[in-house]
Amino acid sequence: MQNFIFHNYTRIIFGKGTESTVGAETAKHSKKVLLHYGGGSIKKSGLYDRVVASLKSEGVEFTELGGVKPNPRLSLVKEGIELCRKNGIDFILAVGGGSVIDSAKAIAVGVLYEGDVWDLYMKKDTAEKALPIGVVLTIPAAGSESSGASVITNEETQVKTDIGYDFLRPQFAILNPELCRTLSPYQVACGTADIMAHVMERYFTNTRNVDFTDRLCEATLQTMIKNAPAAIANPDDYDAFAEIMWAGTVAHNDILGRGREEDWACHCIEHELSAKYDIAHGAGLAIVFPAWMKYVYRHDVNRFVQFAVRVWNVDQDFQNPEKTALAGIERLEKFFKGLGLPVRLSEAGIGEEHLAEMAEKAASVWGGTTIGNFVKLDRNDILNIYRLAK
Amino acid sequence: MQNFIFHNYTRIIFGKGTESTVGAETAKHSKKVLLHYGGGSIKKSGLYDRVVASLKSEGVEFTELGGVKPNPRLSLVKEGIELCRKNGIDFILAVGGGSVIDSAKAIAVGVLYEGDVWDLYMKKDTAEKALPIGVVLTIPAAGSESSGASVITNEETQVKTDIGYDFLRPQFAILNPELCRTLSPYQVACGTADIMAHVMERYFTNTRNVDFTDRLCEATLQTMIKNAPAAIANPDDYDAFAEIMWAGTVAHNDILGRGREEDWACHCIEHELSAKYDIAHGAGLAIVFPAWMKYVYRHDVNRFVQFAVRVWNVDQDFQNPEKTALAGIERLEKFFKGLGLPVRLSEAGIGEEHLAEMAEKAASVWGGTTIGNFVKLDRNDILNIYRLAK
Repeated sequence: MQNFIFHNYTRIIFGKGTESTVGAETAKHSKKVLLHYGGGSIKKSGLYDRVVASLKSEGVEFTELGGVKPNPRLSLVKEGIELCRKNGIDFILAVGGGSVIDSAKAIAVGVLYEGDVWDLYMKKDTAEKALPIGVVLTIPAAGSESSGASVITNEETQVKTDIGYDFLRPQFAILNPELCRTLSPYQVACGTADIMAHVMERYFTNTRNVDFTDRLCEATLQTMIKNAPAAIANPDDYDAFAEIMWAGTVAHNDILGRGREEDWACHCIEHELSAKYDIAHGAGLAIVFPAWMKYVYRHDVNRFVQFAVRVWNVDQDFQNPEKTALAGIERLEKFFKGLGLPVRLSEAGIGEEHLAEMAEKAASVWGGTTIGNFVKLDRNDILNIYRLAK
Repeated sequence: MQNFIFHNYTRIIFGKGTESTVGAETAKHSKKVLLHYGGGSIKKSGLYDRVVASLKSEGVEFTELGGVKPNPRLSLVKEGIELCRKNGIDFILAVGGGSVIDSAKAIAVGVLYEGDVWDLYMKKDTAEKALPIGVVLTIPAAGSESSGASVITNEETQVKTDIGYDFLRPQFAILNPELCRTLSPYQVACGTADIMAHVMERYFTNTRNVDFTDRLCEATLQTMIKNAPAAIANPDDYDAFAEIMWAGTVAHNDILGRGREEDWACHCIEHELSAKYDIAHGAGLAIVFPAWMKYVYRHDVNRFVQFAVRVWNVDQDFQNPEKTALAGIERLEKFFKGLGLPVRLSEAGIGEEHLAEMAEKAASVWGGTTIGNFVKLDRNDILNIYRLAK
């Protein structure tokens, strides 16, 4: 196990009706906030009215900035930064899913940064602080509700990339699984792929002697495998959504990855897809992850056997580890397919035309010529993976 | 799943050599601290010198209070409170195991409480605040390094009882598994029983639809089952101690119990043993837990089957759930015995003489006539459990 620091101070308020506490939770931090959200779904569902009523009842003044889109855009972030500066706002309340939260984090860090906020995402400079933020989560997926990460797309350059700082973790996150009732089956499926991907990015590691985190990862994946199909089949299955929502937070609150090298190549390979084609991040991950696995499993067949046996209950062929490993990968692919997700680029309408260009961009996103830690991948490897996913 | 709040802000600094950061971590909070520890072991091992050097290098002034004993005493807590008040100390640094940390928490809450600190433990009043504390952990066991709980023994009345507040969680906890090298096999065994007990107190619940936390609990127990024998066999097995130390923290940082009713009867039943006979808490738990299980398993045989199959890999007898359940309990008992722990009162030199009196005291420790949630136990039940453990 490697040395590590784990510091996740986000206060989680979980369960039925918990959005009614948002006014009181916010008022602990500020009485002058930016209320940040996406499209009209929170207004249609009535969540917007409940949040506003709760804020008003606690005397919290707010300025609104809606319109966050999936794969959140830099332009709106810049608008939010100006709005906060102009109005002396010192707290951002994000009501939505990962895109809204990531956008809120970008605004939060941008307000207190003198230069161009995009320079932070391009790793040209490092931030020292950010405004505090709070969250009312509407989609279990990104795990951004207690992570320090933010992913933003610069729509001009079609670059989608991330920053991560412990001080970007939200001060509080309100998680009410009842809010999932209005999600489409496809949204739940995409969220599931995202959550499972966050675990798998940590699971496939070269660090030895990580029994405990291995088992915590396996527990989280098994929870998703059991509950995602139930939630997709029945939007009123509160219990299934409760498991998914809490698992989705833990999957990305960093506890599953401490003490081990993490990978994160698939996220980079996927980011090119969603930046270029604006597909859902979860759908892109469902395409990329099985292909990545087929490309890299020989690097550590035994780890893939463990994945197959412990996560997927594959009947182990002791004489043939490779067969067992491949059976696990097949189970993952079938699971994603069964949730209604694409598992091939062609199923998402993506052809050969930009693969080489995307591979080139993905390979350089960490500032060098390779990405990933389990196996370091250059642009040729990435192109091979895209082609395996055709 | 039940509604819950989860807020664990303790900053964990984990790994080799990490005690060298104690001065810098402490200086973030205070330059005038109480250095609280137990007997001479930290001086013998050299840890004391390293901690003092780190504090001095950061200009942190400290007043010392050593002498914490296992089952920490109220009298020393009161001495600590006076010392802090007299010297204007506003931060407590605990260097030791659960007893030292619990004693530090009692001092921390007592300094800012106007009445008698013992009234808080007797639940006659509620605290609103405490001094912040920091921890350098030397024994993986109590999980106090990131919990809000503190257990203190009033040696005059032989009452051992607890308080719990989120604001009692340490600000930071430094966990270096190398420090475990000097522990005796018996200390490691007692710590293991304590850690596993913290999980099992949460695992045995009447709350339904708690897949995720069930699996996280099972992951933690399996980690302990694999690594404790290795650590006991070889004090230089850093990897095994690293797994145990991190599992021991997670076992009691509250993440395993959120959204579910917890039990905690066994801890109460054990506290009477260690208060009366001054045996190690972990040894007492190894005696009490199997007996409690034998007494209550019929309340939910299926849960005990799950425990047997998932935690202990018992070959399930599908026609005979009771047999499978009992096989799991037997495996737990044998595991504790194999670690060198007592599993009967007689093995700890405890006879019949005070059983009725202890059962009476244990039954009333929650202020009523029963303890436990999985099954509510009155004094007769508790006496029966003591007798099953004879």
